[in-house]
Amino acid sequence: MTDRMPSSEDTLSLLLNPTSVAIIGASDDPTRIGGRPLRYMREAGFKGQIYAVNAKRDSVQGLPAFRCVAELPGPVDTAIIAVPAHSVVEVTKACADANVKSAVIFSSGFAETSDEGRRRQDQLSEIARTARMRIVGPNCLGIYNSVVGFFATFSSTIEGMRPTPGRVGLVSQSGAYGSHLSLLATLRGIGIRFWITTGNECDLDVSETLGWMAKHPDISVIVACAEGVRDGDRLLASLALAHERHKPVIFQKMGRSKVGADAVQSHTASLAGTDAVYEGVFRQYGVYRARSTEEMLDVTYAATFDTLPTNRRIGLMSISGGVGVQMADEAVELGLEVTPMSDGAQARLKALLPYASPRNPVDITAQAFNNLDLVKANLDVMLEGGIYGAIVAFFTFVAAAEAIVEPIQKILRDAKKRHPDCLLILSIVGSPEVIQRYEDAGFPVFEDPIRAIRAVDALSRFRERFMDRAPLPPIEIALTPLPPVPISEYRAKQILAQAGLPFNKEYLASTATEAVSAATEIGFPVAVKVASPNIQHKTEISGFELGLTGPDDVRRAFIAVTSRARRTHADAYIEGVLVSRMVTGGIETILGAHHDPTFGQVVMFGLGGIFVETIEDVSFRVAPFGDDEAHRMMRELKGFPLLDGTRGGPRCDLDRLAAVISSLSRFAATHAGSLQSTELNPLVVLPTEHDLVALDALIVTRQEPVPPEK
Amino acid sequence: MTDRMPSSEDTLSLLLNPTSVAIIGASDDPTRIGGRPLRYMREAGFKGQIYAVNAKRDSVQGLPAFRCVAELPGPVDTAIIAVPAHSVVEVTKACADANVKSAVIFSSGFAETSDEGRRRQDQLSEIARTARMRIVGPNCLGIYNSVVGFFATFSSTIEGMRPTPGRVGLVSQSGAYGSHLSLLATLRGIGIRFWITTGNECDLDVSETLGWMAKHPDISVIVACAEGVRDGDRLLASLALAHERHKPVIFQKMGRSKVGADAVQSHTASLAGTDAVYEGVFRQYGVYRARSTEEMLDVTYAATFDTLPTNRRIGLMSISGGVGVQMADEAVELGLEVTPMSDGAQARLKALLPYASPRNPVDITAQAFNNLDLVKANLDVMLEGGIYGAIVAFFTFVAAAEAIVEPIQKILRDAKKRHPDCLLILSIVGSPEVIQRYEDAGFPVFEDPIRAIRAVDALSRFRERFMDRAPLPPIEIALTPLPPVPISEYRAKQILAQAGLPFNKEYLASTATEAVSAATEIGFPVAVKVASPNIQHKTEISGFELGLTGPDDVRRAFIAVTSRARRTHADAYIEGVLVSRMVTGGIETILGAHHDPTFGQVVMFGLGGIFVETIEDVSFRVAPFGDDEAHRMMRELKGFPLLDGTRGGPRCDLDRLAAVISSLSRFAATHAGSLQSTELNPLVVLPTEHDLVALDALIVTRQEPVPPEK
Repeated sequence: MTDRMPSSEDTLSLLLNPTSVAIIGASDDPTRIGGRPLRYMREAGFKGQIYAVNAKRDSVQGLPAFRCVAELPGPVDTAIIAVPAHSVVEVTKACADANVKSAVIFSSGFAETSDEGRRRQDQLSEIARTARMRIVGPNCLGIYNSVVGFFATFSSTIEGMRPTPGRVGLVSQSGAYGSHLSLLATLRGIGIRFWITTGNECDLDVSETLGWMAKHPDISVIVACAEGVRDGDRLLASLALAHERHKPVIFQKMGRSKVGADAVQSHTASLAGTDAVYEGVFRQYGVYRARSTEEMLDVTYAATFDTLPTNRRIGLMSISGGVGVQMADEAVELGLEVTPMSDGAQARLKALLPYASPRNPVDITAQAFNNLDLVKANLDVMLEGGIYGAIVAFFTFVAAAEAIVEPIQKILRDAKKRHPDCLLILSIVGSPEVIQRYEDAGFPVFEDPIRAIRAVDALSRFRERFMDRAPLPPIEIALTPLPPVPISEYRAKQILAQAGLPFNKEYLASTATEAVSAATEIGFPVAVKVASPNIQHKTEISGFELGLTGPDDVRRAFIAVTSRARRTHADAYIEGVLVSRMVTGGIETILGAHHDPTFGQVVMFGLGGIFVETIEDVSFRVAPFGDDEAHRMMRELKGFPLLDGTRGGPRCDLDRLAAVISSLSRFAATHAGSLQSTELNPLVVLPTEHDLVALDALIVTRQEPVPPEK
Repeated sequence: MTDRMPSSEDTLSLLLNPTSVAIIGASDDPTRIGGRPLRYMREAGFKGQIYAVNAKRDSVQGLPAFRCVAELPGPVDTAIIAVPAHSVVEVTKACADANVKSAVIFSSGFAETSDEGRRRQDQLSEIARTARMRIVGPNCLGIYNSVVGFFATFSSTIEGMRPTPGRVGLVSQSGAYGSHLSLLATLRGIGIRFWITTGNECDLDVSETLGWMAKHPDISVIVACAEGVRDGDRLLASLALAHERHKPVIFQKMGRSKVGADAVQSHTASLAGTDAVYEGVFRQYGVYRARSTEEMLDVTYAATFDTLPTNRRIGLMSISGGVGVQMADEAVELGLEVTPMSDGAQARLKALLPYASPRNPVDITAQAFNNLDLVKANLDVMLEGGIYGAIVAFFTFVAAAEAIVEPIQKILRDAKKRHPDCLLILSIVGSPEVIQRYEDAGFPVFEDPIRAIRAVDALSRFRERFMDRAPLPPIEIALTPLPPVPISEYRAKQILAQAGLPFNKEYLASTATEAVSAATEIGFPVAVKVASPNIQHKTEISGFELGLTGPDDVRRAFIAVTSRARRTHADAYIEGVLVSRMVTGGIETILGAHHDPTFGQVVMFGLGGIFVETIEDVSFRVAPFGDDEAHRMMRELKGFPLLDGTRGGPRCDLDRLAAVISSLSRFAATHAGSLQSTELNPLVVLPTEHDLVALDALIVTRQEPVPPEK
């Protein structure tokens, strides 16, 4: 996995920062697809060498035109290919032959259109691999590096409003959407340094680009948009890098809903994994998943100010009581802590501003702006205790008045100097110029205070996750794979018990007499279940009997259960029955793992019964992971209050439960090569005895080893 | 309730459309609170008579100044009072004596600050009542009528950006927030006709203003913001009016969270009811509850285009596949139907645009904009079937290019002409001028497509609710109130059974022998419960025994249960025990009603057991209501799939359940004067027998009649 990363670094840096560029299919018309990159690069003052390649002309936009790549007088770092689809393979091959280091292919008409296109695209992949040439696209809108004015794109958003360099890297599979984002980010004052649209991803993909950005010293915030990734391992490695370097990643993964996922399938060649698994991956790696463009840009914008709140306590200041309440409502719903100020601080505030509500939210009322010393004193009191990781101040148009901007900025800057760790976000309505002055002073500004609150939540989650341990590295795959034959419940329990999963003692009885003596040994009441590697769904055939209270009961049940099984599964190998102690009460949970085509072994944990059935209250993670991650999984469940005893019930042994969940994750990772799925259902959490036990277990193996994912 | 409304209409119309205005405390300085209204009205060309009252000056901003109201040469419709708090009562009294019809009091220093202030405010209420003079405020930012240029406000948002008249009426308790909203609405191009900040509401309140706007022929959309209302009946009457006239109401009620509600308490004198009850009221009356300013303005903006979708099917068109998927994801999560186009329509589209995804979302790709006939043909195909109540088209910056705007507008207008019922919303990024051209052509434009989808959802909910029956009018209160003494479970069940609520037959047995014969009559197994009007919580004292299988069992249980009760409740009157058939299985629900201080009798329905405990899965409505409303209550529950059988279980008799819920609502409304609370818990829904039965019942009466709400 990791050996794919290092060597690519240099070529990607070259791709995005070339000293020489060839435009193949360069157009004399600066408004055409083949004409725009040249115009954009010149307008942006790109200093590198630019060659125009066009066999039909002598010159292109004033540059001499060359007939083909082979005739170029010097080496080429990056070729921009803007020729019809049917010529692309030939042209790309010529680039490889001419030792061009990388290429950006605009042309469409590949895997997204037809089988013929898919074949052409495979040829491009082949060229990339054999010639070690990096290819972006095909069917993409290009790339840019705004610092050096390298605009290898035909996106019309570049016209009129050129992106400003900043510390944000953006990668998008969709070119149209990437362009839309670039424009909106620029309008918002978010500086995008590197912008890459990967299109059909015949070579370079979103995951690898993300990893490159995670390593790049000039990038501090990463934005990614995709409908799905093909190589889950590469995505995980890149996300682990971003985590290690404490770079916030904001990811928009399309296709949350069934309809959305179907639409993804219908219009791209991308293989989208189950959305719930992506959701788990994002949580595991501390990635912020954005559900809309606005949300994505809000979080990105706030992250560019380089202050992540050190805790989840939030101070709320407003000039309108009603807005203070709104902000508090939102903060509480997001799980931020609207901690009241200390009694002393409240008393001091009340003395300063008798008409203010000093608790938190703090309502200073618009009158405070008649004497800015009051705003300053108020801010100082809120900051002094050092209790708040972030403060959101709603000043609306009041702070946009010309006479106010300078003095308020001074107050804010002074406060920031004394309390640099506290994230201070403003909510102001004003002209773009006024807003920019606040931003230049170092303060994020949101028109809508609710969006500011959401940004605080996002940033504090980044920080929490960064402070926490990194996701576990992959572990060794077991040398002895699971047997490629059906595994009985009895055997599955033995295998899983060795991996640390909890089962009650039970006996495999092949005769009624054996069953009775097992039951006597265990103690009544007992449960009896048919034992066969070929029968997995015992409920449907009434393959068990519960609550058996005496020897006669057990004898009768043995006969009943095995004969029903023989009747319904004539070919099944019936080993006999499993006899076990009856377990009643407790909270039913479900724990399992399965092979996901994108991410490999994925663990699911949820509450059982009506919770899993009715509200799909489950949580996913990629295996393996540690107890801390298992704790997070539990806490994501809506039904978590059932487990932690806050709803009146006894508190379960959550540490023990976390250990069991992470044990299953290690088991799954160890057997990644041969495990299709495993499930403990129910895994009963017994609050009174502070223990847990799985009542049923299932292991399904893969008959063949998985082919390596592309 | 209704008799409060009619006479106020004329005075409110006069208040907002006066022919003569007196400014008391008028200032010569046009930047001061007492100076701004005069300046604003003059700048806006207000045609009415304006009198300046200022005892210390001869002239104010060029107008002659009068010493007091009594000396004014003509009658006054509306007085603006901008004097210090301590003079306000006197000045207001003078207005009343001078037969001034209404007053707007800016001054603060009333109930929001001190007991002394509260007393002054009560005096103002008294003047309003006795002199039949309408008063807005005190502690408010004023009112305006943008059509006639009547700006009785000192809000600084009026400077620079004067509100434009439209068909929106806005009422806000908070002046600062109301000003903020006025500015944002104006910037957004939303035309506010009437704007009222009610402040401390010594007379005019949010509810009454809302009702007046509901009746006003020039208002078609109503926006309201409040931290709570004092008079629930008045709010309900106003909302019923808005429903009757099909006017969308967008309401922002602050204080959703505990912290938020506490903050409301701490900074205003307003009596906020339980937030969950407001939530129920809003659903009942089809009010859109906004959680943020942005959301509120989005829905308001979209509603001003006067087209509500006639169904919940949505067509999605985009030039970026990824955005199509995003829109589909959001639509599905909101419960909109992303219905695919017919096979024929898809085939036609595919023929027109071979590279398009024709299903829905429809990805026409940016290339379609190279030949606008394709966009037109595509739109026609989507509209033809008439299946979509709304279509959202994501065109981003592509549709903002100068050469494109005119032809695209023509295409859109033509389409709209042929399909006027379909709501067509655009998502475009462009200059304010370009956006306005689309708006002027009749199309709402959102920068963010997700916000457009949310607006479609909101508008289609308005339409659905308008098409549905109006909320029930209040019903006659019972002449015979419930007895003002503790009511036993046995008696409660009799009372509720008469009201149509379902119970199993059960016997009150005062001796063990009676209990045994009752059990024999019912058939074993039975349950036995202590019967006493003084013992309401039977679980705590083990006041019942279940699953009794024979006469000896019952005899023993009688003695055990009654003696435990005597031990724990020495003073209780023990009637004996209730003997009833054992009910096992089924889905436990909880149904109850209670007296809410704001809205009177409120009904709660939810799923029982862990659902109500863990995720508070309950729904509220004001009593009384019909079966249709009860159906909506059920469908709001997250656990609804348990009831309707979609999760594999049998489908309950939902109509029967709805009838039971609405019966309880009628019972509660009938006994509104004497009922404190009633609860059926559990109300067991028995899927197999398609019936339901309440196993326990409780009625708590109010000892005294409720004092009339202020």
